[in-house]
Amino acid sequence: MKALTYHGPGRRTWDEVPDPVVRDPEDAVVRVDAVTICGTDLHILGGDVPEVTEGRVLGHEAVGTVVETGSAVRTIAVGDRVLVSCISACGRCGYCRRGTYGQCTGGGGWILGHLIDGTQAEYVRTPFADSSLHRLPDGVDDETALMFADILPTAYEVGVLNGRVGPGDTVAIVGAGPIGLAAIATARLYSPRRIVAVDLVAGRLAAAERAGADEVLRADDGAEQAVRALSPDGLGVDVAIEAVGVPDTFELCTRLVRPGGRVANVGVHGRPAVLHLEELWIRNVTVTTGLVDTRTTPLLLDLLAAGRLAAGGLVTHRFALDQMPEAYDVFADAAGTGALKVALFRP
Amino acid sequence: MKALTYHGPGRRTWDEVPDPVVRDPEDAVVRVDAVTICGTDLHILGGDVPEVTEGRVLGHEAVGTVVETGSAVRTIAVGDRVLVSCISACGRCGYCRRGTYGQCTGGGGWILGHLIDGTQAEYVRTPFADSSLHRLPDGVDDETALMFADILPTAYEVGVLNGRVGPGDTVAIVGAGPIGLAAIATARLYSPRRIVAVDLVAGRLAAAERAGADEVLRADDGAEQAVRALSPDGLGVDVAIEAVGVPDTFELCTRLVRPGGRVANVGVHGRPAVLHLEELWIRNVTVTTGLVDTRTTPLLLDLLAAGRLAAGGLVTHRFALDQMPEAYDVFADAAGTGALKVALFRP
Repeated sequence: MKALTYHGPGRRTWDEVPDPVVRDPEDAVVRVDAVTICGTDLHILGGDVPEVTEGRVLGHEAVGTVVETGSAVRTIAVGDRVLVSCISACGRCGYCRRGTYGQCTGGGGWILGHLIDGTQAEYVRTPFADSSLHRLPDGVDDETALMFADILPTAYEVGVLNGRVGPGDTVAIVGAGPIGLAAIATARLYSPRRIVAVDLVAGRLAAAERAGADEVLRADDGAEQAVRALSPDGLGVDVAIEAVGVPDTFELCTRLVRPGGRVANVGVHGRPAVLHLEELWIRNVTVTTGLVDTRTTPLLLDLLAAGRLAAGGLVTHRFALDQMPEAYDVFADAAGTGALKVALFRP
Repeated sequence: MKALTYHGPGRRTWDEVPDPVVRDPEDAVVRVDAVTICGTDLHILGGDVPEVTEGRVLGHEAVGTVVETGSAVRTIAVGDRVLVSCISACGRCGYCRRGTYGQCTGGGGWILGHLIDGTQAEYVRTPFADSSLHRLPDGVDDETALMFADILPTAYEVGVLNGRVGPGDTVAIVGAGPIGLAAIATARLYSPRRIVAVDLVAGRLAAAERAGADEVLRADDGAEQAVRALSPDGLGVDVAIEAVGVPDTFELCTRLVRPGGRVANVGVHGRPAVLHLEELWIRNVTVTTGLVDTRTTPLLLDLLAAGRLAAGGLVTHRFALDQMPEAYDVFADAAGTGALKVALFRP
């Protein structure tokens, strides 16, 4: 089959590799019908994720059709249309027993396109199939479903739930890329008073408005005061969700929240930030970080199927699967192409 | 009356000042029967708290007897033996309505010995007397009660509750001064599996053992590995409570916790710390800060009276009230004198 493989920093190919097969009784093999590229894949290509080794097939998001299952798989069958989640779960370790599958110590966690071959291929082997694949509801199309492999549960669990967004809250979302937009959509589930999106790029702010932001602000020197002015008492927002992954935006979030506020970091960071404890110690601030667990993926798919969650409008560029190299080029040049999410489909 | 007044960085006097009087219908005036000195008072004398102005009477912890009340005071009467809490609460603002009295925007919060004259005096005026004084249960002596003006609720609310200590948790307490010792005592209310105290000073580690720490470790290069080795799976502790207030100990706490762990900062910081988001973003870590609200002071006093909370052993040095200057000298030289808390009593 064809697959996108990593060959060290900056080097990727779309080439023939061996077809995956069931190796463990809990495995399934899935034919990839739709797949996307994540900002994390660009981090890998940038050399930021040294665990990824030469020859690894990248990708941790897909929608597909089950073509083979191991002897211990019970709830997933050949022919099922499934979401391949970015997180695999052994279901047995202490972390899985608490629903924190992202931290699985039994061989799962974020393994696809990281520690084992991933989804940017014609087929993918998925370990722990019962707990790591999600059968898709009828009426949910592949492109929309694809957004639930990573970005919707990530934005919801690591942003909205960790930040404890609640009714009446003022919520700042810093960064209006795919994760920020998914945070806007899922924050609305909790009826906040006002969602304020902050970004550098006009096109992303327009997307934030379409996703449901009540106010959008260009990230500049006045953004901090402008966000604060949008909170009811002027003291700051209840929740700031960091959806960029650089020190400046994280530190901005710690200044945006009111006493008692929460900063939910969703961004993938490559560098440390400064935590101004000399100001924050007295302000009852909570800072959270996290890798998605995908424990809410079934709930979010249910909400989508029930028409209670708007998750469209994230895909800006569509390709056939064998246009993988072009899709990477377009996604990597998001500033030039205006790409949010790209999607590739089996022809 | 005599009072300890601040006259700019490094300068304090024990001198005659005017007696306080009721100025507002919600005020009470309390005769100080027992009072202590807080590490925060040393920060003020170090010039770290610029809101404290020339001539301010310091101190925010006391036990005393009510000698006068304003016309609107309903639940506190002349003659009552009361705890003067470090936090005053207007009871009306949004923060007070949520029980977060420390952040009161209606004229309360931490005001005593900070924005208004405090408790290191023969008498003290206490605003919002109904919500800021606590009548003391019979059978609780002045010295023990004094520990409930600040350090017990601070350690409990900002350390144990913010850190969500729960049954079976492994808890690291970094810093075994008065706050750290109070954190040990109140963490035990939640039946943790193991409490590990870390400090530089042998005498403080001995005090930590007496307060109920299961293990004590000298803070040195091997402490990080040693703490981790004491967690059941070797991944780190569930909760790390920072009770020192310097960047190094905060950063140590972020390395001690397991994925999914909580760092509860209690220390008063004068400098920023480094937050290693490049390591922490993926580890589901929660960092909290906070000023005490004292919302749990009545509960903690109940537990004390019921014999369910061990809060003794914190006072190492006792003085008469007019020995205030000597008490400051002993407390400020804790390294030399071995002082934990000092207590001063009306003769």
